[in-house]
Amino acid sequence: MNYRMVFYVLGRLMTAIGALMALPTVCAMIYRESVLPFIIPMAVALILGLLLSFKKPKNNRFLARDGFVSVGLSWIIISLIGCLPYIISGAIPSFVNAFFETVSGFSTTGASIMTDIESQAKSVLFWRCFTHWIGGMGVLVFILAILPRSDMKSFNFMHLMKAEVPGPTVGKLVSKIAGTARVLYGIYILLTLIEFIFLVCGEMDVFEAITHSFSTAGTGGFGIKNDSLASYSAYSQYVVAVLMLLFGTNLNIFFLIITGHFIRAIKSEELRWYLCIIAAATAGIFLSVGLQTAFTEGTFRHSLFQVASIISTTGFYSSDFELWPVIAHVILLILMFCGGCAGSTAGGVKVSRIMLLFKNGKREVRYIAHPRAMISVKLEGKTVDHETVRGTTSYIIVFIAILVFSVLAVTAIEGKDLITGFTSVATCLNNVGPGLSEVGPTDSFAHFSDPTKLILCFDMLSGRLELFPMLMLFSPAAWRKFS
Amino acid sequence: MNYRMVFYVLGRLMTAIGALMALPTVCAMIYRESVLPFIIPMAVALILGLLLSFKKPKNNRFLARDGFVSVGLSWIIISLIGCLPYIISGAIPSFVNAFFETVSGFSTTGASIMTDIESQAKSVLFWRCFTHWIGGMGVLVFILAILPRSDMKSFNFMHLMKAEVPGPTVGKLVSKIAGTARVLYGIYILLTLIEFIFLVCGEMDVFEAITHSFSTAGTGGFGIKNDSLASYSAYSQYVVAVLMLLFGTNLNIFFLIITGHFIRAIKSEELRWYLCIIAAATAGIFLSVGLQTAFTEGTFRHSLFQVASIISTTGFYSSDFELWPVIAHVILLILMFCGGCAGSTAGGVKVSRIMLLFKNGKREVRYIAHPRAMISVKLEGKTVDHETVRGTTSYIIVFIAILVFSVLAVTAIEGKDLITGFTSVATCLNNVGPGLSEVGPTDSFAHFSDPTKLILCFDMLSGRLELFPMLMLFSPAAWRKFS
Repeated sequence: MNYRMVFYVLGRLMTAIGALMALPTVCAMIYRESVLPFIIPMAVALILGLLLSFKKPKNNRFLARDGFVSVGLSWIIISLIGCLPYIISGAIPSFVNAFFETVSGFSTTGASIMTDIESQAKSVLFWRCFTHWIGGMGVLVFILAILPRSDMKSFNFMHLMKAEVPGPTVGKLVSKIAGTARVLYGIYILLTLIEFIFLVCGEMDVFEAITHSFSTAGTGGFGIKNDSLASYSAYSQYVVAVLMLLFGTNLNIFFLIITGHFIRAIKSEELRWYLCIIAAATAGIFLSVGLQTAFTEGTFRHSLFQVASIISTTGFYSSDFELWPVIAHVILLILMFCGGCAGSTAGGVKVSRIMLLFKNGKREVRYIAHPRAMISVKLEGKTVDHETVRGTTSYIIVFIAILVFSVLAVTAIEGKDLITGFTSVATCLNNVGPGLSEVGPTDSFAHFSDPTKLILCFDMLSGRLELFPMLMLFSPAAWRKFS
Repeated sequence: MNYRMVFYVLGRLMTAIGALMALPTVCAMIYRESVLPFIIPMAVALILGLLLSFKKPKNNRFLARDGFVSVGLSWIIISLIGCLPYIISGAIPSFVNAFFETVSGFSTTGASIMTDIESQAKSVLFWRCFTHWIGGMGVLVFILAILPRSDMKSFNFMHLMKAEVPGPTVGKLVSKIAGTARVLYGIYILLTLIEFIFLVCGEMDVFEAITHSFSTAGTGGFGIKNDSLASYSAYSQYVVAVLMLLFGTNLNIFFLIITGHFIRAIKSEELRWYLCIIAAATAGIFLSVGLQTAFTEGTFRHSLFQVASIISTTGFYSSDFELWPVIAHVILLILMFCGGCAGSTAGGVKVSRIMLLFKNGKREVRYIAHPRAMISVKLEGKTVDHETVRGTTSYIIVFIAILVFSVLAVTAIEGKDLITGFTSVATCLNNVGPGLSEVGPTDSFAHFSDPTKLILCFDMLSGRLELFPMLMLFSPAAWRKFS
C-alpha cells in the first residue's frame, strides 16, 4: 500500500470535514447555543488534516486496493470526528452511542439511539441531519469536486469514486472525473434547494425545511420530531415522498434531462423498473391496508409515502406501519433489500443489480433449454460483460454472508425475538433506519448493548460503501507495502 | 422436445411406481387391513405405464431440456398416483391435502397435514414413510438402476441423473451410468438395513423400525407417532441422529470406503466442512439451551438430534425446539438453508455449494487487492471451472427469487405472522418439514388454505429437484417439437 498517499487523502478529508463544521457553528450562533461542540472538533480536524496533507507525496502510485482501504478508513475517521459534537454538547454522553448515531448519519441509515429528539439543541439536530447530506453523495466525491485541477491530473482517482458511488458500474458523465464529481454535486445541491423551497411554502419554518431537505437528499431519515413526519400536513408528506423517490433515482438521469436528452432519460431501463416496482408496491400496500381499514386518500398517501421512504432507504414514516397487515411488512422488507437506483444516494442492493440478477437467472433457464446458444445479459440495451455479472453475483453472496453472520451475532448477544434480530441487521445493512418489532418505526436502537451497536455500525458502513471497502480493511494483502 | 421419448420414460416410471405399490399391499395383508387403496392405483399405474412404454421410440434424441422436463413431469405424475391410497382409504379425503402429503413424502420434506397420525391404518403409515424412501434416491435413478442393458446403450441418460441427483456436479462412480445408479441404490439399501437392525435391537418393533428407517434414509421426517421421536428411548434417538447424519453425507464417500479408499474418503473437503458445521452448531445450541435449562446429557442429545435432523433436512424432533432461545432458532434456520452434502438424499442448498460460494466471495476480495492475479476457486483440491461457479451463483439467485415470491404469496393469502410465512416456505423449499410459529414441530400444515398448499407443493418439488426441472415446465422452449 502507498501509505503516504493514503495519509494525504485522509488529511484532505479531515480538512474538508473540519471546514463543513462551519455550518452547524453558524446554526448554533443563530439560535444562541454553545458553539464549543463544533469549534473543538473543527479545530482538531483542521490541524490534523493540514498536518497530514501538508506535503504532497512524490510517489503517485494509487492502486484499487489503496482506494478501497482509503475509503474504508475515511468513513471510520469522519465518524470518529463527527461524534465529538454529540459528546461535547452532552446530547449523547456515551461514546458508543454517539459513534452509532454518527455512523448512522454519514451512512444515511437514520437508525437512532435518541429516545427524545425534540428535547435536543437545534444545532445538534442540524448537525445530525447535515451528516446525512454529507454522507449521501460521498465524502471523497466531495473532495474530488473541490480538489484543484493540478492535483487531479497526477493520479487516477477513479478507484475512490468506484468505491464510494453505489452501483455495479460507474460512468463518467463528462470526460474528466473531477468534472463528473462537480456535476453530481451540482445536481445534488439543486434538488436539495428545490425541496427546501417546496417545504418552506408549506407549514414548515426555515429550520424544519433545511433539516428535512438534508435528510431527504441523503436518503437518511433523521428527523427533528419524535414521530418523524406523521404530524406534518398531507402537502409536506407528498413533497417529501416525491423528493425521496427523486433522490432514489440515478442522478445521471437529471444530468441527461438538464442537458436536453429527455428521450434518453425516460428510456432508461433501470428507471422503468424502479417506477414499476414503486407502482406495484404502492398498489399492494394500498390494497392490503385499505382492506384492513378504509380506501381513503390518507391510506393512499401513507402507502405511497412508506414505499418511497423504504425503497429510497430513507426511513421516514408518516404512520406507524407496524400496525399494517403482514403482507405489507413483507413488501416493505423486499423494498428494503431492493433499494434505489445505482448512482443515487439510496442504499440497498440497487435496482440495476436486481435487474442483472433477474436477467441472469432467466438466462440460466434458457441456457438449459439451448446449451449451445450464446445468450448474453443486456442492460440498458448494452451487453453486460462477464466481469460485471460475476461481480454482481459475488456481491449478493458476500451481502448474504454479512447478513447471516450479523443476525447470528446480534441474536446471540441480545436474545430478543427473531424479527428484531433480523430486521435490525437488514435495516442497517440496507441503510434504511427503522425495522420491525423492537426496532420498529416508533422505537429506537437505544436498548441494544454496545457490542451489538458496533456490529450494526459495521453493517451500516458496509452497506453504504457496498461491502468491499470495509472487507478490504481485514485483508492483509491491502496493508502490505509496495515491494 | 422428443415427445415419444418423454412418454416412454413416463411409462417406465408409472410401471415402476405400480410395482413398488406391492410393498404396502403386503403390509395391508399382514395387518388385515383393506388392500383396495393400493390395488386400485397399482392397476391404474401398471396399465397406463405399459400402454405408454409399450413401443420403444425409434428417435433416440434426448436433450438436456427433455431430461429436465421428464423429471419435472415424472414427479408430478407419481405424486398424482401416490395420493390415491390416501383418498381411497379415506385417510385424507380432500384431494389437495392428499396431494400435499404425497408431494411432501416423495420430495422427502415431511411437512404434514395430518393432525392425528396414530389413528391411521398401519398400511397407510407404511406407504407414507415408503414415499420418503422412494423419493430420497430419486425415482428416475431407480429406473436407471433396473433398466435392461440394451436400453441404456442407446441414449444418453446422464441428463436425467443430472436433474435428479442433488449437488453442483454429478460424478460417475463407475464407468457406466446404469452401474453408478445400481451402486448408489446398493449403498442406500445397505444403510437402510443397518438402521433397521440397530433400531430393532432397541425398544422398536419391526413395523416401527422399518418405517423410521425409510423416513431416515430419505431424510424425510414422517413418523408414526404424534410426537415424532420424542417418546422413544435415548438409544433410539442416538441411532436415528447418527443415521440422519450418515444419510446427509455424500453416498460416494461410502463407495470409497467400501472399495478400500479410506484415506481418500476422509480427505473429502466437503465431509470436513459438513462435520465442522455440525460440531459448531451442536456446540452453539448446547450452550444456549444449557444456559436456559441445564447442561445435562438430555440437553446434549436433543441439541445433536435437532442439528442432525435439520442439516440433513429430515425434520424429526426429539423435543419441542420452539421453546429454545432465539439464537438456537437462528442456528437451525441457517442449517435448514445449508442442508447436507451433494450426492446425499438431503435437501437444502448443499454444503458443497456453500463452500463454493464462500470461496468465490473470498476470491472477489482478493481480486480487488490483486486485479491482475489469476485466482481460481478450488474444491476438493481441483480447480472448479467457470461454468460450475456461474451455475452455482445463478442457482442461489433463482433460489432466493422463488423464496421471496413464495413468501409474498403465502403471506398475502394467509395473512399470518411473518415467521409462519417465512419458515413455512423455507422448510418446504429446503425439504425439511417443520418450521416455527404456526408451522412449528408440534403443529401441522392443515390450517393453510388450498392455494397456499399448492404453492408449497411447488416449493417442495423445486427444492427436491434443485429448481430447474420445475422452472423448465414453464419455459415455452422446452415444449417445442424438434425442428
